[in-house]
Amino acid sequence: MIRVPFENLLAELARALLTLGFEADRAELCARLFAETTRDGVYTHGMNRFPRFIATIRNGSVDVGARAELVQTMGALERWDGHFGPGNLNAYACMERAIALARQHGIGCVALARTNHWMRGGSYGWQAAEAGAVGICWTNTLANLPPWGGLDARLGNNPLVMAAPRSSGPVVLDMAVSQFSYGTLEAYSRSGRELPVPGGFDEQGELTRDAAAIERSKRALPIGYWKGSGLSMMLDLVAAVLSGGNATRQIPLDPLRETGLSQVFIAMDARSFDASQVADGIIEFSRSAAPVQVGRPVRYPGEQTLRLRAENMLAGVPVEEQIWSDLLAM
Amino acid sequence: MIRVPFENLLAELARALLTLGFEADRAELCARLFAETTRDGVYTHGMNRFPRFIATIRNGSVDVGARAELVQTMGALERWDGHFGPGNLNAYACMERAIALARQHGIGCVALARTNHWMRGGSYGWQAAEAGAVGICWTNTLANLPPWGGLDARLGNNPLVMAAPRSSGPVVLDMAVSQFSYGTLEAYSRSGRELPVPGGFDEQGELTRDAAAIERSKRALPIGYWKGSGLSMMLDLVAAVLSGGNATRQIPLDPLRETGLSQVFIAMDARSFDASQVADGIIEFSRSAAPVQVGRPVRYPGEQTLRLRAENMLAGVPVEEQIWSDLLAM
Repeated sequence: MIRVPFENLLAELARALLTLGFEADRAELCARLFAETTRDGVYTHGMNRFPRFIATIRNGSVDVGARAELVQTMGALERWDGHFGPGNLNAYACMERAIALARQHGIGCVALARTNHWMRGGSYGWQAAEAGAVGICWTNTLANLPPWGGLDARLGNNPLVMAAPRSSGPVVLDMAVSQFSYGTLEAYSRSGRELPVPGGFDEQGELTRDAAAIERSKRALPIGYWKGSGLSMMLDLVAAVLSGGNATRQIPLDPLRETGLSQVFIAMDARSFDASQVADGIIEFSRSAAPVQVGRPVRYPGEQTLRLRAENMLAGVPVEEQIWSDLLAM
Repeated sequence: MIRVPFENLLAELARALLTLGFEADRAELCARLFAETTRDGVYTHGMNRFPRFIATIRNGSVDVGARAELVQTMGALERWDGHFGPGNLNAYACMERAIALARQHGIGCVALARTNHWMRGGSYGWQAAEAGAVGICWTNTLANLPPWGGLDARLGNNPLVMAAPRSSGPVVLDMAVSQFSYGTLEAYSRSGRELPVPGGFDEQGELTRDAAAIERSKRALPIGYWKGSGLSMMLDLVAAVLSGGNATRQIPLDPLRETGLSQVFIAMDARSFDASQVADGIIEFSRSAAPVQVGRPVRYPGEQTLRLRAENMLAGVPVEEQIWSDLLAM
């Protein structure tokens, strides 16, 4: 792991994306989204995911030149077609449009079909909050999680994002519906550590904290067991209904060919509301709870982001050495 | 427990509500919402909750004559004031308004302040779905759940409802953010049965399936541990910001004085979309998973409701004998 100044990371990413055929302004935005995700400490969906992003461009899953396009409007609700363009650019454009609709109508919704992996979902929550909007968005994914009561993967690990503006830093929840991602399970399994809470079933069908056993059974847990299972199904259903695009069951199972996703972006204009005051009150109230571990007060969603962002802007953004040298060689 | 024909239950409820000062049309709707909740098998929020509803009318928390009123419009997003009227009537009126806004703008949102407990949240999901709309709504509650990392109750057990229309029966998720309600914990504790999955911490701070131990520690679990904790905080924050009403921290802690809640009702007009086809495909796909228990296929949110509804319409709606005789005596 090395630390790279944020501006260098941004410049190298933009340069590399130009060589892949991105137009200049889109190379810059795409680079910024990857660099900011890494800077904010969401390493799994920033630079660590960049090689896979490149691979999906090279195998034709992602069309670098395609732009999301309006296909149907109902006023404050619009349907867009992602034309299999870069997932983060499509998502950014659609949240931008939802915010514009919200400024016009109070609330705006863009349902996006035929798009690609949006990388860090939280990016679009931050985007909404920084524009003074409450943002709610979610995506479906390929099937990688068994539903409650079932043995085979039939659910996506669909992330749900909710964000609200706040003058001293937005509150942003970015939450997938599985208790632990397969990436996290792999990290625990490799290190031999126990999961902090049960993360799935072992091959005997018992709840377990043994990540390796869950990898073998392929039975990771949705959050809240039957509840997260229902939530995942609902997110998939609403995304597919509103966008007219694919449901999880129609998305290719190969992660390198996971394309044609459906997403929903909702924004509510909160510029005239007292969002900061409300958020500060809620955060203060949470922190007034006696902590389980002395000296570790309750945190709010997004709190860690601001700390990691400050740290990484100062010390440089952590990037795997191999990924950095591959980027420089592009 | 006795079984009462649905129509009798409806008639007795409406009669009783008239004696409490409800106007005729409102007595009828309020009665219908209570009767349907019980008929649909959500016993905790139907007749079993009616005595508490009466108590909150008698102690002045609920004003039977108050109607929710529009206070601010931004087009497709409106703020309403519940004036401390009956929670189910206010919620029904606001979802009705959100549906009307959705028919006009594609999406509609009503944020409601100063209301009361909405009883079964799922009612407003069914309402939206039966009108051909995708419905999303949630409420905050008094603080009754410790946040992740904290020992004291600082979160509400805020229910989130998502619903989509489907010709052979809507798909309706009605999910509170705690793994088990205190009512459920009490039932397990009384019967001495173990919870099916860990539901909270014991007094030593260990995860446990012992409901009585959780009642003693008062540390029930949010779904997904840190995830449900963040989700609960977000639902509270967005409800309070959009409505301009109270956050959980401002709601009286006595369940009989739990008033001044904030709620959000969102509807998207799906009448021209293929909601049934999408839902059928997703349900069929889930059911194609090998079941954990032979003969028990994976269920979708709301599936059980239709079965219980049919059963209770045929055999009569189950009501506690004492509650029924108290109702007759009103």
